[in-house]
Amino acid sequence: MASGVEVFFYPESVALIGASGKPGAFSHEMLRNLARSYKGRLYAVNPKYREILGIPSYPSIQEIPDEIDLVVIAVRAERVPHALQEAGEKGVKGAVIVAGGFAETGEEGAKLQEEVASIAQRYGIRVVGPNCIGIYNAVNGLDTFFLPPEKMRRPPRGYIAVVSQSGAFLTTMMDWLAAESVGIVKAINIGNKVDVDEAEVIEYYASQEYVKAIMVYIEGVNPGRGRPLVESIRKAREEGKKVVVLKGGKTSYGSRAARSHTAALAGDYQVFSTAIREAGAVEARNPTEFVDSAKALASIGHLRAGKRVLVLTNAGGPGVLATDELASRGLEAPRPPERVRERLRRVLPPIVSLENPIDLTGQATDDDYKIVLDTVLENDDWFDSMVIIAPVQPATMTIKVADIIADAIWRSKKAGVVMTIGAEYGDLVKEYLDSRGIPTYPLPDRASAALHSLVEASRELCPLPEPGKPPREALAIVEKAKAEGRTKLLEHEALRILQLYGIEVARYCLATTPGEAAECASRLGERIVAKVVSPDIIHKSDVGGVIIGVNKSEAVEAFKAIVENVQARVPGARITGVLFQDQARPGLEVIIGGRRDPAFGPIVLFGLGGVMVEVLRDFALGLAPASRCQASRMIESIRARKLLEGYRGSGPKDKESLARHIVVVSRIISEIPGIAEIDVNPVILYEKGSVAVDARIMLE
Amino acid sequence: MASGVEVFFYPESVALIGASGKPGAFSHEMLRNLARSYKGRLYAVNPKYREILGIPSYPSIQEIPDEIDLVVIAVRAERVPHALQEAGEKGVKGAVIVAGGFAETGEEGAKLQEEVASIAQRYGIRVVGPNCIGIYNAVNGLDTFFLPPEKMRRPPRGYIAVVSQSGAFLTTMMDWLAAESVGIVKAINIGNKVDVDEAEVIEYYASQEYVKAIMVYIEGVNPGRGRPLVESIRKAREEGKKVVVLKGGKTSYGSRAARSHTAALAGDYQVFSTAIREAGAVEARNPTEFVDSAKALASIGHLRAGKRVLVLTNAGGPGVLATDELASRGLEAPRPPERVRERLRRVLPPIVSLENPIDLTGQATDDDYKIVLDTVLENDDWFDSMVIIAPVQPATMTIKVADIIADAIWRSKKAGVVMTIGAEYGDLVKEYLDSRGIPTYPLPDRASAALHSLVEASRELCPLPEPGKPPREALAIVEKAKAEGRTKLLEHEALRILQLYGIEVARYCLATTPGEAAECASRLGERIVAKVVSPDIIHKSDVGGVIIGVNKSEAVEAFKAIVENVQARVPGARITGVLFQDQARPGLEVIIGGRRDPAFGPIVLFGLGGVMVEVLRDFALGLAPASRCQASRMIESIRARKLLEGYRGSGPKDKESLARHIVVVSRIISEIPGIAEIDVNPVILYEKGSVAVDARIMLE
Repeated sequence: MASGVEVFFYPESVALIGASGKPGAFSHEMLRNLARSYKGRLYAVNPKYREILGIPSYPSIQEIPDEIDLVVIAVRAERVPHALQEAGEKGVKGAVIVAGGFAETGEEGAKLQEEVASIAQRYGIRVVGPNCIGIYNAVNGLDTFFLPPEKMRRPPRGYIAVVSQSGAFLTTMMDWLAAESVGIVKAINIGNKVDVDEAEVIEYYASQEYVKAIMVYIEGVNPGRGRPLVESIRKAREEGKKVVVLKGGKTSYGSRAARSHTAALAGDYQVFSTAIREAGAVEARNPTEFVDSAKALASIGHLRAGKRVLVLTNAGGPGVLATDELASRGLEAPRPPERVRERLRRVLPPIVSLENPIDLTGQATDDDYKIVLDTVLENDDWFDSMVIIAPVQPATMTIKVADIIADAIWRSKKAGVVMTIGAEYGDLVKEYLDSRGIPTYPLPDRASAALHSLVEASRELCPLPEPGKPPREALAIVEKAKAEGRTKLLEHEALRILQLYGIEVARYCLATTPGEAAECASRLGERIVAKVVSPDIIHKSDVGGVIIGVNKSEAVEAFKAIVENVQARVPGARITGVLFQDQARPGLEVIIGGRRDPAFGPIVLFGLGGVMVEVLRDFALGLAPASRCQASRMIESIRARKLLEGYRGSGPKDKESLARHIVVVSRIISEIPGIAEIDVNPVILYEKGSVAVDARIMLE
Repeated sequence: MASGVEVFFYPESVALIGASGKPGAFSHEMLRNLARSYKGRLYAVNPKYREILGIPSYPSIQEIPDEIDLVVIAVRAERVPHALQEAGEKGVKGAVIVAGGFAETGEEGAKLQEEVASIAQRYGIRVVGPNCIGIYNAVNGLDTFFLPPEKMRRPPRGYIAVVSQSGAFLTTMMDWLAAESVGIVKAINIGNKVDVDEAEVIEYYASQEYVKAIMVYIEGVNPGRGRPLVESIRKAREEGKKVVVLKGGKTSYGSRAARSHTAALAGDYQVFSTAIREAGAVEARNPTEFVDSAKALASIGHLRAGKRVLVLTNAGGPGVLATDELASRGLEAPRPPERVRERLRRVLPPIVSLENPIDLTGQATDDDYKIVLDTVLENDDWFDSMVIIAPVQPATMTIKVADIIADAIWRSKKAGVVMTIGAEYGDLVKEYLDSRGIPTYPLPDRASAALHSLVEASRELCPLPEPGKPPREALAIVEKAKAEGRTKLLEHEALRILQLYGIEVARYCLATTPGEAAECASRLGERIVAKVVSPDIIHKSDVGGVIIGVNKSEAVEAFKAIVENVQARVPGARITGVLFQDQARPGLEVIIGGRRDPAFGPIVLFGLGGVMVEVLRDFALGLAPASRCQASRMIESIRARKLLEGYRGSGPKDKESLARHIVVVSRIISEIPGIAEIDVNPVILYEKGSVAVDARIMLE
């Protein structure tokens, strides 16, 4: 597949515009790096020189007597547009713009960035940057990271591809990956993302057969670019690649920092997190986990991983700590079944603990590991994954244990990670296991966290929802309101839309005259609420616009009272009528809402009513439209989910009905053009069924 | 100060009982280690040899022609009692028992362990272990860790002392500390803790002037040993030492593992965590943090640290990630005040971002760091601590920046940690900063986590509460109930105790006859609740023992109805009478309780009523008695604290009054002997005042 970004990784010729002849200058160091490692044809552009470091230099790009695939523009910001234009005229396919001083610095920089964008578009030249350090490709030696090896280690060659919004974080990662002996094959820093962004890079990486895992560092997603990002992650997953994402700017402080640094809106972190996880990415909590996860995903990411983890150890404390870490991440350590315990009991010394962890104690030999692993793999239906703790410190242990462990993991086809340590002996075990593609970690918490990332990456995705069609009457209601210049639907209009989508709404009836009020009330139940309907009134209760506990005989009176109250307190307010509605019987109140995220588009929110959402911020999000499967996952993900199982004598609530409400709200926000926001609050949930009581729909 | 455990670290002579002559055997390796490094007089005990590795060997300890301070007993479990007895007869002061096979393996092992304990007591010999690897002392070379250097690295000498319940975790830590170049001075593994436990070791370390930080790894606290642990941590803090604790067995899975491995009850993790933090310890979340925190605490733990953190960086992404990590831990990154920004704006290039992080960008020079640090330190009242991110990767940076940073931190007297990376250049900066006592980390999340531990270690402790005296009448109520063989106080007794402690209780009155009922009700308010009082009934409502909404004129009727209901449904139940009580006006319901923890003794619990405590497990604990200061911290630590500030139109609640209730409940559980449990549920909290409505007190 020829991707638009392939030219950045596999140019046949590269010109460095602004290459300096002065040692120490970054554009000189960059040329030195390129000259040392890049396998294609290389040129410099600098009128002051005929050659630099043995590379031919030309006064301008036009004068290079060769076709140029890629230019690296290493001049100051204000000179970038000119250089880019010349490259465009030359027919260059891609440009890496290194300089900062664009949108990240303020208004003037933003203008300069727009100019760059329009030149690029005019000439059909793809751009990486500005404000970036460019490309690293271990295959052909392309390396625009202007840092000499003594300042930034290059990781060994491996199966990981990296895309980072931040250059400085990428260079930090390069060093750390190298220190941890984790191999990579490609890396790109996309900086201000005037053109190429994460989505396109991930999609390209997904097409590369030798890429097994993709590391993505993102600070902000540009407006409208959330869905392409999500789709690229889905595509990568379909191609069998594992994606691990680290978000910078999760908190308000962090996102303020991100803004001043890469000119991206960090946006609502929870939306981001939900969206990428729905698409199958693993989210790393921090840089340590980012690398540790990538290491596991790139090596054994294709093995089966699941929540039930066997911990095998010869070291008590590390076993305990590994298990704590697993449990804190929602994984399980089931006790081995009696048949397994019985078989092990017969062959192992009595000091061995046959719980989970299976603790061989400090007297364990390599053979004990073999006995346990052979035995559990013969009866392996009770666990999905393994954390094997094998420090080779005790005298009874040798480096042969590495062979035993690697054989067992590959044979098992289950994901297994290893914690090992032990001076030179530990180094040997680590290196051997690395060479056999088994990920190792020096500490138990890191091993368990890495295993968790494997489980996360293996979870099944919800199928994408079938595209739906909005009911014609719903479209008409919105059109009418827009035509009347309203930014909000009237309550009965909003309730009607819910009904049109087929969910139960507390019975209501709109009366525009006292006579209609009586008629309305006669069709409703015993206890009724009366509410003013007016495009001019927001807080109905405050103006005497709501009366509760009305019975049928009081309907006319209530109608008149409301109209009087409102006319007195809001002179000139248009009064459409009075809405009479059944008071719903008590149940569990939930809130379901929808809105449009600038990056990810329509989203749906669900939480329990009142304190839970507002004070504890206990709610779940999903991209809209949401499938039934996704709605069910949202329901299971709130902290207070126990309340849905029944609480203090009330039985379990109707989750199916709740899921249907969530799906409908997600469809309304995504299917009906012009709706900016919807709040159904409350939906009252019963042991059987649920009913929407109040709905607010805002228009764009 | 001569501590009972000093002999374990500074024996003048050591005998290794069970020293093997066979290379590879652990007791041979142990002798080899000791022979290599220990500076005192060393002997072996093994009838088969006259000498081993040049060390004189004797058939029994009695035959050694020297006084022996410390024996290391390296024989199998069943032979330990005999060896210990011989050591006792010889007048040995301390014994390290290496073998496993004691309480951690089950009942028989537990018996053997009891035998060991009684022999030790008989001879006044102190014991470390069993099931342990013993002692490491960098000062005199005492090293009973039977692992050769090629299997376990020894950390450099430094200012950290370690105590670990797990031997295998300690050897893992030794290797990791060495890999991270973090120095230690002493370490001890106390295993099954038949005698010496953490509290005594911490107290000993606290007395050592060259110890700056103490690392404590605990899986379980033995019954009754929680308070000594807490006191030892307080003492260490008073001596200016910083204590960092890692708990193994936090979760149910982890604690099951801990149980099978060291025979300790992992206990209630939240009690443990609260107790050690109240005493001033820092709790590490995992092994990575354990070492990173200790490194910071041992180097700059004495500098002032506070919540407001300045982040200075030349690397955008790492700055964002450091700030995210700070914010996620409740720390702040305040914007520099305008006067500081103004001064910096004048001297720094416009590309620099003067928010927080102050981002010097990839073009930063060493001098830029100096300019910023000099400037902010002249106006330093707006921040307390620093995270300085200084990868030396850019060509503009040199290793001189290390000097600038170290000077600034020492001059500032504020805690500052550094993140640095950058191949060989990075290594040089790290080594230089290490040598100047400034802690460095390779990743931003780890730097921020370490800074957080400094802030945690610096927080002020609440003063210990004044010892109180229980009211005589309260004691009498409990005595009477005990004399009557009751395990629970009657409701009016429990309410009376609260009143005796001076807090407001919803007015109540006990009627034992219909006549008294009328009289009772006449003294109460408009709306009254009537409840049966009986030592034989637990769920009063279930037997018709509660009537709400009673008014004065209905009191006699209510009395009779309740008595009839109860007699009908629980024939033979003793009925003390009927309690009439004012129905309290609505407010915010909270729960306050007290109980006795097996390890830590009396504790107090506070949470918001209903769902918050029961479903979301949102509550705070404290050791009892609690001071007012401690009660206030408990109040501020619940997740739903926002509800106390006022919610949906209601004003802020009376926290002073709430704190008083918490203090009283904590006093009741700790001052009145024989009370096992107390639950005051609900206390109703108002904008002014609060009132206890219902109380349940269980006796032992």
